[in-house]
Amino acid sequence: MAQRIRVQNFTVSQDGYATGEDQTLERPFGHADPGELMAWRFDTASFPGRTEPGGSRGLDDYFERDFANGIGAEIMGRNKFGPQRGPWSDHEWVGWWGDTPPFHTPVFVLTHHHRPSITLADTTFHFLDATPADAAEQALAAANGLDVRVGGGPSTVRSFVDAGLIDELHVVVAPITLGGGVRLWESADEFDDRFHHENIPSPSGVTHHILWRKESSPEQEQVTS
Amino acid sequence: MAQRIRVQNFTVSQDGYATGEDQTLERPFGHADPGELMAWRFDTASFPGRTEPGGSRGLDDYFERDFANGIGAEIMGRNKFGPQRGPWSDHEWVGWWGDTPPFHTPVFVLTHHHRPSITLADTTFHFLDATPADAAEQALAAANGLDVRVGGGPSTVRSFVDAGLIDELHVVVAPITLGGGVRLWESADEFDDRFHHENIPSPSGVTHHILWRKESSPEQEQVTS
Repeated sequence: MAQRIRVQNFTVSQDGYATGEDQTLERPFGHADPGELMAWRFDTASFPGRTEPGGSRGLDDYFERDFANGIGAEIMGRNKFGPQRGPWSDHEWVGWWGDTPPFHTPVFVLTHHHRPSITLADTTFHFLDATPADAAEQALAAANGLDVRVGGGPSTVRSFVDAGLIDELHVVVAPITLGGGVRLWESADEFDDRFHHENIPSPSGVTHHILWRKESSPEQEQVTS
Repeated sequence: MAQRIRVQNFTVSQDGYATGEDQTLERPFGHADPGELMAWRFDTASFPGRTEPGGSRGLDDYFERDFANGIGAEIMGRNKFGPQRGPWSDHEWVGWWGDTPPFHTPVFVLTHHHRPSITLADTTFHFLDATPADAAEQALAAANGLDVRVGGGPSTVRSFVDAGLIDELHVVVAPITLGGGVRLWESADEFDDRFHHENIPSPSGVTHHILWRKESSPEQEQVTS
């Protein structure tokens, strides 16, 4: 089975924003409320942050429980790790993900500024100054034969799509608008030249967009060459 | 995480039949054509029997790739193993599933007639004369902390539903009618007193029915007592 590079459970507003404006330490999503944007995930039985029993086992749960299925490494942009810009001034602060991050694999954080790797429980964060293609190569090598998840944020996902590196893209459109922030797309059909595209409304009110690479696209040749 | 008992990718016709009439060695589904009934599975990239690259990564593939996710044992009725009735007369014939069965776990075959266990690659078939509740208990114990799949056929699934043993039920309604055979249900809302029920049309033409136990149902108390 060939390794794939996947985007999963990546949630955007109806106007295409995956995060709001003015990210700060206290507000990783800026003016956007992650509780509202991500409500579909929190309501599933399989959400890793769930602290009480219960939750839906419906369609949304199938996506949520596929999050770790066959994934051996994650790549994320620096802004998914923390709000700092420029050189790292505080090595004591180890990211937004707490003592037991939900990744359980190596995670490659893209940044122009070097910093030593950090291990928290079974997740190790490596900091990488690399192009999307080089980061993909390193993550695939670290994934132990499994797939690589590109976790976000929107600029990072977009740069991997634009580089033709994404095999599968699962984007969830939540029933809210944000009006500003960082966009994944202006409209959901933006990548249809390169991807098959299914569009599945969920009873929860979100719409699951499932995109997978068209077999004859030039991007595929680029990746397999 | 509590162990669950799940039915997955169980496919029926629009009139509720999961298999046709007159099962024989050559025709495990009787007059029904499994290639037609199960077409949605064969078209996915994750179908275990796929011999060529390609296949869909859309909604149907999410269900197909969840087939083995977190499953540690399967329970099946005798007719899913082979067409024989009564005492086993031929121990040389080891079932319909070939040298490398797609289960990769212990499989408990319900039969009133004893026969020694059979190991084929990483699947071991055990033959069990037991009630659904006793079979469930043995399969849960063998599943190494993971979930148990009730694999079919329709009478077996039905008997586990009727015994209140099923936590999750995923039934796929294919766009064909069979007019006869063995039914799972007469109509898809038949279990709605006991299960939450989502109904998700797929672009492939099938409809995915996802049912999960209502939390306050008497069946749950029965299982957890």
